[in-house]
Amino acid sequence: MKPFIHEDFLLQSDAARTLYHRFAQAEPIYDYHCHLPQKLIAENHRFADLAEIWLGGDHYKWRAMRSNGTAERVCTGDASPREKFDAWCAAVPHTLGNPLYHWSHLELKRYFGLDVIISPATADTIWREANAKLATMRVHDILAANKVAVICTTDDPADPLADHARIAQLGIKTRVYPTFRPDKALGVNAPAAYNPWLERLGGEAGMKVATFDDLLAALKKRHDDFHAVGCRLSDHGLETALSEPCTHAEAKAIFDAARAGRAAAPAEWAKFGSYLMLEFGRWDAAKGWTKQLHLGAMRNNNARLLKALGPDTGFDSIGDFPQARALGRYLDALDSTGELPRTVLYNLNPADNYVFATMIGNFQDGSVPGKIQFGSGWWFLDQKEAMEWQLNALANLGLLSRFVGMLTDSRSFLSYTRHEYFRRVLCNQLGARIESGELPDDLVHVGGMVKNICFANARAYFRLGLDAAYAG
Amino acid sequence: MKPFIHEDFLLQSDAARTLYHRFAQAEPIYDYHCHLPQKLIAENHRFADLAEIWLGGDHYKWRAMRSNGTAERVCTGDASPREKFDAWCAAVPHTLGNPLYHWSHLELKRYFGLDVIISPATADTIWREANAKLATMRVHDILAANKVAVICTTDDPADPLADHARIAQLGIKTRVYPTFRPDKALGVNAPAAYNPWLERLGGEAGMKVATFDDLLAALKKRHDDFHAVGCRLSDHGLETALSEPCTHAEAKAIFDAARAGRAAAPAEWAKFGSYLMLEFGRWDAAKGWTKQLHLGAMRNNNARLLKALGPDTGFDSIGDFPQARALGRYLDALDSTGELPRTVLYNLNPADNYVFATMIGNFQDGSVPGKIQFGSGWWFLDQKEAMEWQLNALANLGLLSRFVGMLTDSRSFLSYTRHEYFRRVLCNQLGARIESGELPDDLVHVGGMVKNICFANARAYFRLGLDAAYAG
Amino acid sequence: MKPFIHEDFLLQSDAARTLYHRFAQAEPIYDYHCHLPQKLIAENHRFADLAEIWLGGDHYKWRAMRSNGTAERVCTGDASPREKFDAWCAAVPHTLGNPLYHWSHLELKRYFGLDVIISPATADTIWREANAKLATMRVHDILAANKVAVICTTDDPADPLADHARIAQLGIKTRVYPTFRPDKALGVNAPAAYNPWLERLGGEAGMKVATFDDLLAALKKRHDDFHAVGCRLSDHGLETALSEPCTHAEAKAIFDAARAGRAAAPAEWAKFGSYLMLEFGRWDAAKGWTKQLHLGAMRNNNARLLKALGPDTGFDSIGDFPQARALGRYLDALDSTGELPRTVLYNLNPADNYVFATMIGNFQDGSVPGKIQFGSGWWFLDQKEAMEWQLNALANLGLLSRFVGMLTDSRSFLSYTRHEYFRRVLCNQLGARIESGELPDDLVHVGGMVKNICFANARAYFRLGLDAAYAG
Repeated sequence: MKPFIHEDFLLQSDAARTLYHRFAQAEPIYDYHCHLPQKLIAENHRFADLAEIWLGGDHYKWRAMRSNGTAERVCTGDASPREKFDAWCAAVPHTLGNPLYHWSHLELKRYFGLDVIISPATADTIWREANAKLATMRVHDILAANKVAVICTTDDPADPLADHARIAQLGIKTRVYPTFRPDKALGVNAPAAYNPWLERLGGEAGMKVATFDDLLAALKKRHDDFHAVGCRLSDHGLETALSEPCTHAEAKAIFDAARAGRAAAPAEWAKFGSYLMLEFGRWDAAKGWTKQLHLGAMRNNNARLLKALGPDTGFDSIGDFPQARALGRYLDALDSTGELPRTVLYNLNPADNYVFATMIGNFQDGSVPGKIQFGSGWWFLDQKEAMEWQLNALANLGLLSRFVGMLTDSRSFLSYTRHEYFRRVLCNQLGARIESGELPDDLVHVGGMVKNICFANARAYFRLGLDAAYAG
Repeated sequence: MKPFIHEDFLLQSDAARTLYHRFAQAEPIYDYHCHLPQKLIAENHRFADLAEIWLGGDHYKWRAMRSNGTAERVCTGDASPREKFDAWCAAVPHTLGNPLYHWSHLELKRYFGLDVIISPATADTIWREANAKLATMRVHDILAANKVAVICTTDDPADPLADHARIAQLGIKTRVYPTFRPDKALGVNAPAAYNPWLERLGGEAGMKVATFDDLLAALKKRHDDFHAVGCRLSDHGLETALSEPCTHAEAKAIFDAARAGRAAAPAEWAKFGSYLMLEFGRWDAAKGWTKQLHLGAMRNNNARLLKALGPDTGFDSIGDFPQARALGRYLDALDSTGELPRTVLYNLNPADNYVFATMIGNFQDGSVPGKIQFGSGWWFLDQKEAMEWQLNALANLGLLSRFVGMLTDSRSFLSYTRHEYFRRVLCNQLGARIESGELPDDLVHVGGMVKNICFANARAYFRLGLDAAYAG
Repeated sequence: MKPFIHEDFLLQSDAARTLYHRFAQAEPIYDYHCHLPQKLIAENHRFADLAEIWLGGDHYKWRAMRSNGTAERVCTGDASPREKFDAWCAAVPHTLGNPLYHWSHLELKRYFGLDVIISPATADTIWREANAKLATMRVHDILAANKVAVICTTDDPADPLADHARIAQLGIKTRVYPTFRPDKALGVNAPAAYNPWLERLGGEAGMKVATFDDLLAALKKRHDDFHAVGCRLSDHGLETALSEPCTHAEAKAIFDAARAGRAAAPAEWAKFGSYLMLEFGRWDAAKGWTKQLHLGAMRNNNARLLKALGPDTGFDSIGDFPQARALGRYLDALDSTGELPRTVLYNLNPADNYVFATMIGNFQDGSVPGKIQFGSGWWFLDQKEAMEWQLNALANLGLLSRFVGMLTDSRSFLSYTRHEYFRRVLCNQLGARIESGELPDDLVHVGGMVKNICFANARAYFRLGLDAAYAG
């Protein structure tokens, strides 16, 4: 029997197979957004066992296990690594139809060479063979094997950049850069967490953060520091864009109140955030960075389990917030003064795909091909159906050929197969269009577009420094 | 020529055909939500003619007829049964592409053995042959022929349970239970209808309902009464979930005003409803019931025809209300105190499918497989395209294998074919995935999932009493 | 090699091919909504070159060029026609997957007989051959070649009808009528533009417009004038329907303020607009007109380029406004007094398709087949994927067989191929359903529906005067 993961997995036409094997498969990976821990790269970490590398920090898997009736102890609690692994193997057969079924089998095949259907019956074999392989495989091996040209981690301005500095000295071909993600700078609604954060920010920036102007100065200092180590991207995680009018005096008053322990009301929070977001946009534009907006998540919906387990443990979901008006105003405010940076808009609610895919067109001004990007399917949308929706929306309403393509957005070093997954989905979709006559039967033309989406578009667009092996 | 409804109807691959015929077709029906009139079951009703059983109460068909230019008199008015039937036969050819075209032909085939394309030319034959068959067919025959293991009707707490008690004595294999649907308990915005309803409620509960605490006590009494006759489900029809903070004193004040004839303002109505909905949730949790939330309908949009014809006559449509925030808060409020019952969320706006399918994941806590369910395509979504969307959303974002499957939600005894329809859609979709390599080519594994979704999952989840023939 | 545009373009099954060639292809065009300049028809305009007819006024193409990195000067600026044309030819290969790729090749093939893939390499040939053909082709030739039975332009009540009167004398077979689109009558929020407009309106209506009652009288006069030249449709472009309660006194006060130069606040604007929209609806109903509502666009998002280039230059996008409640109330208000005209609802956000497709059912009253229409995919939705969504939504929730079909909505005389495009999409979709067994294998039945959707339904529904050649 043909193994489940075979060379033509997801490729359902001749054209798709040719596109993938000839134009996509060999391209390096330009991972411009992820949540990998840079410390593990700096240390060239070796993983203790398959449970650590495969289940640790993976809230997708925990969510599936809970849905399957697995107790929390075995998801995130004090159960042994093997017990957790066994619970996952018991859950996998119940994930038929979920991307986890594909991802998990793809990961076992590509990283460990295992052609096996995951189930309790195969758990023993998997555990033994994968662990044996894992003993020979460290983080740098993974990056090299996957031809990862660049990694952009996600960093708080109050975080040190020491690991990034260490990595830069390693001599590995993968360049690793921080991304400036100042979400915590908006935290005036929660002074108990905000004030200690301001202290940490001041510590990294080498200054006291007592006033609103201090805050701006400290953030700007860190923006400069990030730039100095090669950072060229910022990122923001918000329910919606923020575009409330806010004067410096208003922002200052809101900051002063929070600094004194008085929480901002929601409307104040939105004004304050709007002020900062404009500042951040201007800084990015001035330095030629690209801004990323991750919009639409509704986070921390389960108070009981948030309290027990903390954030990012699988209790977030897709919001249904109005997006268009505020997003249009935010981009327009920056554009009006010629300070709109290259921007990637990530949308979490697929019902809004067409809103986002038409929004980018409002601010394409001919200065850069694909200046405003409709980002790849994100989080819950990072699977075949939703990738196809994003690709279709972008193709129908913008220029797919200028798309900067896939990113992992992952916390796991086993996620590089998501690029393979994306490329198969992309090639399958374009191949189907060729076979139906919707695209011209010109594999060189379509294949060139595929190749660009896999790597070259991102390289030209983000302008991060690359090792000579990948610099093109 | 192959008849339109043939054994492989909707099954477009070998895998789909095998899945359906081998794993789905023979499963009994677990109809955990419908609007069948229990009186007709208690009386083992015999239908006068095809117009009564096929057109009576069917607002889907009336809507199609009106769209086709049919006068109201022939839809719901005083036209003769045959005249109405003829008008429907004239409309059917214009329903090409609408689920009514499929449903109607499926109903004629399965219930009456008729292989005929419905049109004015065939109306005479259909009328004659179906009526002849109908003369030999009573309600209990229909239930037995369709292997209906359980029926949950939809009941107001102010309704008597006498018919259910009679049915329990009949000795038929189909168990029939009420569902606790207290929508009218929220009616403080319309005292003219609310106060008489409170009287009826008090009558059934055997107590006076003068105060808010009386209301709670009477409703609780009925909740207990429903439980005593085997009910294990509640249901609520709302535009959105209700989760406004409301104290007992506030609820009491709003109730007192309504009791005195002063209508609650919309914000008061929402607070009052929020209070009750938390109470209901706690009662369900305490008794191990399952709560159903039917969200998103915008009802009674045509004032002129509402006045002429009353509610549920075909003038409702899909709303575009924000759902996520209030729904998350409602579920979280119950979960926070460990009082979140098993819950099925039904969504009427397909644009919100992904919001719902990710929402359920926030409250899966490992205690029960699929504790929070994303319910089957409902009302306007109860057709192939929208069933596929719901199945895809659930599969991609949750665990399809734990799905409790289809229900009829119908007012008609001819609707059991909707289970066949759903099963064909399900098998067709999974079969296509097997043939494209997206699911493993393991018919026993996938078929087991199909079988569970058809019947066993619901049986395990809802825990209603069944006849030995169906108890497994 | 088969040319990209061949006779079976987009037709992927035998049934689809038969439906298209036998039932759709030869039907005339009933273009009940477009933005063609009537002056060019009156003058039987001859186009200077391919740039004028192909790129002039086409904000779809400009948007794509900007996304591709083309400077504004070459999109809308003072670059030479050939320079603009060359920039477009350079952009086309980057539009793979966008409807522009299909439309552009279809236009070259049908209007100019060119079987060529557009690229810089073919630009010279295209320019030379198309210009040669264009020298022999004037507006009336285009209308005749495309069998255009009727054109409804889009007209401001303050615009003169002189061109329409001239066209009526031309003796061409295409009947050209204005459409009453009084959007500017709502402009009380911008008195600086509103007051001059009122002067122009008064000039056309032959009266002074000093008071609110004058406004109503002048608009009514123009409604009558439009009717007298054959107009039978109105149209409104709004973000959402307007249905705020507003008395005559309130509307008068808002008008008086605007007349005196004080801008209406948003809530006042909505009230004022609601008042007028009810009036307009009543007038339409009284005269047997059809009302069109184009809902959901979010316009003029780029302030900088709006200032530089004016409106309708490619900086509009899809909004995510709540639609259902206001739309239901507006239609209900007219229906309640028996004054709801035939109405076509156009929706710009595909996430709302199901809301719209169920909304129409609320007001189908049996008086006219398909009295309330869910209009064709519009603007950003005027492409294969979104056309299919609209057709599916309508088919699943209403009666596709009563659909009035496609319109161009275009500013270009080269857009008649969009009817061909629509017909191919329609036939392809129905053909696929026949082959999968979802529709009966009865080409005469399904083909009859196709034929009606192409032409006959619109002719029966809109009741515009036609030349004998098209009157049926």
